[in-house]
Amino acid sequence: MMKLFKIAVIAGDGIGPEVINEGIKVLNKVAELDSDFKFDFTYFPWGCEFYSENGKMMDDDGIEQLKEFDAIYLGAVGFPGVPDHVSLWDLLLKIRKSFDQYVNIRPVTLLKGAHLPLVDVKREDIDMLFIRENSEGEYSGAGDWLFKGQEHEVVLQNGVFSRKGTERIIRYAFETAKKEGRSLTSISKGNALNYSMVFWDQVFEEVSAEYPEVETASYLVDAAAMLMIKDPKRFEVVVTSNLFGDILTDLGAAIAGGIGLAAGANINPERDYPSMFEPIHGSAPDIAGKGIGNPLASIWSASQMLDFFGYEEHGKVVLEAIEQLLLENEVLTPDMNGTASTSEVGDRIIDMIASII
Amino acid sequence: MMKLFKIAVIAGDGIGPEVINEGIKVLNKVAELDSDFKFDFTYFPWGCEFYSENGKMMDDDGIEQLKEFDAIYLGAVGFPGVPDHVSLWDLLLKIRKSFDQYVNIRPVTLLKGAHLPLVDVKREDIDMLFIRENSEGEYSGAGDWLFKGQEHEVVLQNGVFSRKGTERIIRYAFETAKKEGRSLTSISKGNALNYSMVFWDQVFEEVSAEYPEVETASYLVDAAAMLMIKDPKRFEVVVTSNLFGDILTDLGAAIAGGIGLAAGANINPERDYPSMFEPIHGSAPDIAGKGIGNPLASIWSASQMLDFFGYEEHGKVVLEAIEQLLLENEVLTPDMNGTASTSEVGDRIIDMIASII
Ligand SMILES: CC(C)[C@H](C(=O)O)[C@@H](O)C(=O)O
Ligand SMILES: CC(C)[C@H](C(=O)O)[C@@H](O)C(=O)O
Repeated sequence: MMKLFKIAVIAGDGIGPEVINEGIKVLNKVAELDSDFKFDFTYFPWGCEFYSENGKMMDDDGIEQLKEFDAIYLGAVGFPGVPDHVSLWDLLLKIRKSFDQYVNIRPVTLLKGAHLPLVDVKREDIDMLFIRENSEGEYSGAGDWLFKGQEHEVVLQNGVFSRKGTERIIRYAFETAKKEGRSLTSISKGNALNYSMVFWDQVFEEVSAEYPEVETASYLVDAAAMLMIKDPKRFEVVVTSNLFGDILTDLGAAIAGGIGLAAGANINPERDYPSMFEPIHGSAPDIAGKGIGNPLASIWSASQMLDFFGYEEHGKVVLEAIEQLLLENEVLTPDMNGTASTSEVGDRIIDMIASII
Repeated sequence: MMKLFKIAVIAGDGIGPEVINEGIKVLNKVAELDSDFKFDFTYFPWGCEFYSENGKMMDDDGIEQLKEFDAIYLGAVGFPGVPDHVSLWDLLLKIRKSFDQYVNIRPVTLLKGAHLPLVDVKREDIDMLFIRENSEGEYSGAGDWLFKGQEHEVVLQNGVFSRKGTERIIRYAFETAKKEGRSLTSISKGNALNYSMVFWDQVFEEVSAEYPEVETASYLVDAAAMLMIKDPKRFEVVVTSNLFGDILTDLGAAIAGGIGLAAGANINPERDYPSMFEPIHGSAPDIAGKGIGNPLASIWSASQMLDFFGYEEHGKVVLEAIEQLLLENEVLTPDMNGTASTSEVGDRIIDMIASII
């Protein structure tokens, strides 16, 4: 029986469409080489251009429209002229929240052939899997802006950590660590954030008791940022909050080949709603339209999509193709010191996939 | 006229007393070589040991007692057995807040002779001055813990950004950048933290208009973390919030010679209350009592104290002595791959100071 996966494509702004295009080529190639599944892509023109024409980032019933898909493939959102908090809250963050994509999975692994920027660290030492809370916490959106413009003006930003939200992400991380036979590190900040992170630490300890087979560690976020540079091999599977995950996975990208290689999956594990796959880089307005955006992050996130659909073998092939490309060191975009175009990189990856499968 | 500076010493826990001792030796040496000022040190036995005997981190009227001093010299606080949020909120954070030390100054400069851990970066590129908001924001301590133990348990952590608090730190940073003739970068997260950081960005823009001569830039905290590794020379003077400053200055320590070299000054610019100088490292319970804690961070913070009292020339001498010690590469503690003891390092610094002055 042939499986058909319906994918909603929100290519978005800037280099988004260019890089997503290569990811789609890759997914189609993988499907073509396998007879078991196919993809059906539906394009949604949402993003900042759409906003400037329609005064909104997506259709009013956009979330409704997306519901019927098996996954969402997102390029990048944001463009000068549209305030960031508008473009993101009305699209990226809205989707993450509406579809309860409470798990954000970000591999921070230095692939073979990728550039190692640290002197004291071995290549193999950079091999972490970040599991970031993706639905609440610091990104709850709750807050208040009082006495605007007056001397006693005060602005509140409220982190909201629910029992349910905290427990499920930590439990997901324990399940992952258990499955992979790796240790789990929690990153928090209980010494200063005297409610939320004390609670986080408590839940981590509670859930930990259910997984005696998983080795655990716990670090303060400041110490963790330092140790990711000084001694990254301490970290295997990592679980952390929404904001800390945001900061530390960008830092992770800096030591794992650059932002051009950093992929992220926004997962609703219960599969009640579509999950979303995206490169974690932005829309890079400075190079948009030049056809030189690096497509490797979106290709890596396509590999995550394959994993999610149960085709881990195929996901691995895509990653291997990326490694071969990096090792070959010939067809790379300018951000990786190459001279190739976005589509040349995609084409080369496809060749390599064909030679592996 | 001889000036006498009265310094309250809270050596604290773990390696705190050992490293502070060397800082005091250094301050006394500098004073001895100059006839213009002297220090008078008063020791306060506060910290976690005090807590285990008295059930509190400091005397009830501790803040009152400290008020009469010209500065506070702090080692490190925290020890296994006392929950971090107790030891810190009842001492370090309490002092920062009670004395309105709203400016936290942390140099992130790779000194001559210090180890450069990055492949793609030049030594001179790491030369930033972080100005961290130190009195409110994410560290307001405000929050709530509702429905404890129930399924709908929810924990709130409230960031509080006041007009006064936000404006004064940003203005302080502009003044510093102007004085130093360097650019000023604001680090925030307006795209996700839709109240506090939108406000921060707005205030930064407003104050910026008063300083047309200061070149400015603004980064998202995630991008900033990445760029500190990839391209640190972008950053000169940096202003950021309490939490972001915490994370990024530890990251800064990782690229600027390690946590053993990272100093911080908690300043009340109006001098209504004493300011506080501290190494930013912790109490390092694992090596406490062995006499091998690295005193360089507390010596650097002693240098900051000299700056604060208006003896910038003397502060510079102390920094030069640290550079000489690093370049000599002989008398270093184990964390810097040496075999020297804490006091041997202090003694060597004193020799070098004597030879410079
Ligand atoms: C664009 C922004 C809101 C987003 C975030 O902070 O989550 C991005 O940085 C990411 O990490 O996916
Ligand atoms: C100890 C802790 C509360 C403190 C902070 O987070 O401010 C420390 O990490 C620092 O940076 O001075």
